[in-house]
Amino acid sequence: MRRLSTEDQNFQQTFADLLAFETVNDPELLVTVDQIIADVRRHGDAHVLKLTQQFDRHPAHQFSDLELSQASLKQAFEQLDPEVKNALQLAAERIRAFHTAQKQEGWQYVDALGNTLGQKVTPLDRVGIYVPGGLASYPSSVLMNAIPAQVAGVTEIIMVVPAPNGVLNPLVLAAAHLAGVHRVFTIGGAQAVAALAYGTETIPSVDKITGPGNRFVAAAKRAVFGQVGIDMIAGPSEILVYAEGANNAEWLAMDVLSQAEHDTVAQAIFISPDAALLDAVAEAIEAHLQALPKADIARESIANRGALVLVKNRQEAVDLINQVAPEHLELCLDEAVAMSEQIRHAGAIFMGRYTPEAIGDYCAGPNHVLPTSGTARFSSPLGVYDFQKRSSLIMCSEQGVKTLAKTADILAQQENLDAHARSARYRHQA
Amino acid sequence: MRRLSTEDQNFQQTFADLLAFETVNDPELLVTVDQIIADVRRHGDAHVLKLTQQFDRHPAHQFSDLELSQASLKQAFEQLDPEVKNALQLAAERIRAFHTAQKQEGWQYVDALGNTLGQKVTPLDRVGIYVPGGLASYPSSVLMNAIPAQVAGVTEIIMVVPAPNGVLNPLVLAAAHLAGVHRVFTIGGAQAVAALAYGTETIPSVDKITGPGNRFVAAAKRAVFGQVGIDMIAGPSEILVYAEGANNAEWLAMDVLSQAEHDTVAQAIFISPDAALLDAVAEAIEAHLQALPKADIARESIANRGALVLVKNRQEAVDLINQVAPEHLELCLDEAVAMSEQIRHAGAIFMGRYTPEAIGDYCAGPNHVLPTSGTARFSSPLGVYDFQKRSSLIMCSEQGVKTLAKTADILAQQENLDAHARSARYRHQA
Repeated sequence: MRRLSTEDQNFQQTFADLLAFETVNDPELLVTVDQIIADVRRHGDAHVLKLTQQFDRHPAHQFSDLELSQASLKQAFEQLDPEVKNALQLAAERIRAFHTAQKQEGWQYVDALGNTLGQKVTPLDRVGIYVPGGLASYPSSVLMNAIPAQVAGVTEIIMVVPAPNGVLNPLVLAAAHLAGVHRVFTIGGAQAVAALAYGTETIPSVDKITGPGNRFVAAAKRAVFGQVGIDMIAGPSEILVYAEGANNAEWLAMDVLSQAEHDTVAQAIFISPDAALLDAVAEAIEAHLQALPKADIARESIANRGALVLVKNRQEAVDLINQVAPEHLELCLDEAVAMSEQIRHAGAIFMGRYTPEAIGDYCAGPNHVLPTSGTARFSSPLGVYDFQKRSSLIMCSEQGVKTLAKTADILAQQENLDAHARSARYRHQA
Repeated sequence: MRRLSTEDQNFQQTFADLLAFETVNDPELLVTVDQIIADVRRHGDAHVLKLTQQFDRHPAHQFSDLELSQASLKQAFEQLDPEVKNALQLAAERIRAFHTAQKQEGWQYVDALGNTLGQKVTPLDRVGIYVPGGLASYPSSVLMNAIPAQVAGVTEIIMVVPAPNGVLNPLVLAAAHLAGVHRVFTIGGAQAVAALAYGTETIPSVDKITGPGNRFVAAAKRAVFGQVGIDMIAGPSEILVYAEGANNAEWLAMDVLSQAEHDTVAQAIFISPDAALLDAVAEAIEAHLQALPKADIARESIANRGALVLVKNRQEAVDLINQVAPEHLELCLDEAVAMSEQIRHAGAIFMGRYTPEAIGDYCAGPNHVLPTSGTARFSSPLGVYDFQKRSSLIMCSEQGVKTLAKTADILAQQENLDAHARSARYRHQA
């Protein structure tokens, strides 16, 4: 595994190059996706069915074959192995509890002039959740996307999940049952995004689309942004582990690998001021790789984008972490809480030696949909707030408006907006 | 002005057609903008200077001529006419007070197992505010974009504003002084957006770009989305006024015109169950238009996209309003508060007969950057929350992790993520 030290010549450049990850905008992809969206808008259900038969080799004969009943979701849940069923239930309960704490309420106040000002908070009416099919079809993603929407009070949650050859992961359906998903369609790709954004005869148009997908899905989400809301366009997963003091190198090495096994372009970085610990972690990673089913992926990820970084001290690590703005950050040291207070940018911060990132993926409670590729500089984990929106409330009293109307009148004249000025003037001269 | 009734044949179709406003994605525009972004990334300051000389006919000789000093902002403020200065100060104070109430704080709790969970809230490091130049260079927009960033605690607020022929509106500079803007560059267009997103030798790269602009600016913001955060891409301004009972038709007519004067594609809709009031408002609009400086714009806006709509009752109006999801909504009736509780989607709700929309544009306190074109279905007014972001906090205790690690282990196995399962297993078998 790549070994760096902040004392290396050109360290900053090497480190910046390691972090750089730019998705290429493929013009051909955009044309294909725009065409799919236009065709779905024009031909509705029929075109979605046709593409689903073609791309997913789905055996559906008519569009209604692509909708799953609530009974089938419930059945999938009830037929789970009891241990898995309990685990899924515990995860759902904990995710629900954490997200309930996130729910925002409206507020208002009366100002000194007697005018009422405030903010009303309402849930979105209808949202679409995209769940990838095939290998990356994760029940945990269903919980993490649908439960915040449910907690927000969204009236209708519509899930789309492609079923290649008509085959679905029953655990995904069980998770949809647990998370209160209202309707499920077994469709995917840009055609599913288009159907959710614009609606078809059968699928009602939604107000926002969340959830990860392949490059067709990402391009389609970007294209429909504005028509509907979208969550962030996710990049490869990342972890940054910082450790100092007494630590189990085997544990730390497995935490690093838990990101590396996701994807050959996933990024796993381990930072420490302790050279011996870096050696031990490097060795443990090699040892673990001998036994890991996804060793090929993890090995490529580490070779491509991984690094072990020696720092002079904790402050240097803080600065690097704030530069990376990692999706997942583990702080494995006694003073984890104090160190976390210096972290300005991270999707989720896992503190102490008993908080592996993997429990955050499933059942700690916070969301596992987190900002990647440094976007934690300006964005947040998926949350209840993504399924709520605000309206400003303004109510002036007959007396209270006078000062405000006078002010608005003066400023509107400066902006040459005469109707604005006159509209205000009526109220202060009334 | 177009007159509709919900009892018209095909009313729903006519009304839907009236609301439809789709910005066309001009492929040529996208190519131009992509090229500008690529050139600014490659050539930095030099290219921004070149385009500013070319497009804005700015007399700058070197890049440093494009930066304004803090002293020049202060001077612009101090030289204001006292009445205007006071009005701008009052507006800034009221906007600051409202937005301070919006500021979010972190929280945490300890669960029954002894694990700590929470959410940390931090401001963005650096943001860019785009202010249009020329006629649409509004000091109020500077306050509305910069003050929420300042309240959030953003370390550096960078404003860009094009200065055609080197000329600037001093009121815009005065507003930048009042709102605590840290640096101002007199640049605009896609080149300003590119410079803010990627940085140049002189301009540091920012984390988020907000503020309205022309179609080049909008296309550039969409293109850099992901590299930085952006606010919504704004459509034409809209107002929907609902009135019943005793009302002054002249006031209502001027409120309608205050949106129509913005833009020939702005949308002003007046709804009432009172046919006589519709007549009176129609008449007053015609009368006002005789004396309005921007009558030509307002007339075209009303002809293109305006309507007076007769409804059978208040409930029908509520349903129409929720369908429109208007940027600005005036509820001019005695029961405005009760009616507002039925409104699910609106950018800002102005209640009662003494709350003209124009005071919201300047000095009521809430933001005037609001979701347009029905996007209030899923988005919110610009706010302090746009300049803050969240990080999840997770800290398990040695005992508390055991249940969670067991659960994560089981679920990770179901997802075939073996390193995840093993990473969790270490902690529950420890």
